[in-house]
Amino acid sequence: MIKKIEHIGIAVNDLEEATKTYQVLLNVSPYKTETVKREGVKTVFFECGESKIELLGATRADSPIGKYLSKQKEGIHHIAFFVDDILAEMHRLQSEGFQLLSDEPKPGADGKTIVFMHPKSSHGVLVELCADENEI
Amino acid sequence: MIKKIEHIGIAVNDLEEATKTYQVLLNVSPYKTETVKREGVKTVFFECGESKIELLGATRADSPIGKYLSKQKEGIHHIAFFVDDILAEMHRLQSEGFQLLSDEPKPGADGKTIVFMHPKSSHGVLVELCADENEI
Repeated sequence: MIKKIEHIGIAVNDLEEATKTYQVLLNVSPYKTETVKREGVKTVFFECGESKIELLGATRADSPIGKYLSKQKEGIHHIAFFVDDILAEMHRLQSEGFQLLSDEPKPGADGKTIVFMHPKSSHGVLVELCADENEI
Repeated sequence: MIKKIEHIGIAVNDLEEATKTYQVLLNVSPYKTETVKREGVKTVFFECGESKIELLGATRADSPIGKYLSKQKEGIHHIAFFVDDILAEMHRLQSEGFQLLSDEPKPGADGKTIVFMHPKSSHGVLVELCADENEI
């Protein structure tokens, strides 16, 4: 079951500059910086109510975020929903015709296990489902 | 002060079709449909934790959403932050160099008073500030 917006992912060209901007905009310091080497991404997290803002910078040009930024302007990249049972939710959405980008959830940043859905399933929005890692 | 993500605005080509999609995706019925005639937009709202998902369809081609959809693919259009004191927050952000798109807050959908910030202020993200209407 989808419980809340877990985070909004924002792809940025200059992670250091964007971190300064969002620190002023949100008026809060980031609580975590984490590099997910396998995905070629460095992330910076800010708390915002029960949700988070996740800034995403590419650590290499051929990573998913690197490729995204080579084709599109920086901006909102995805919306992540927190689910209590990711396998059940994957099954429910697949049976409703939504297309998942992987058959299994995989480790994401900030202690989460995640799966992405194809944007064509959701009117152009890249949707991520995420759950706490120990839920799997 | 920014308290939470109030909503994520998603611009869609076919509001009826998108409403069906998001009803299944979020597994909840929309709680409100509202047309803001002045803005040429019809909105559909879903609850998601303490936040909302707002689908945006154009009611005329020359409205802001109509123009947006004529230039860009459907998808995430803006992120709205809930603030307790919109005038204080506008003042704070302006003094920090953020560019607001209007000098005064104006009425938005769902009983809110709103103001937008220029996306160039926030790394390509169209940011809305919103407060409860009776706060002004």
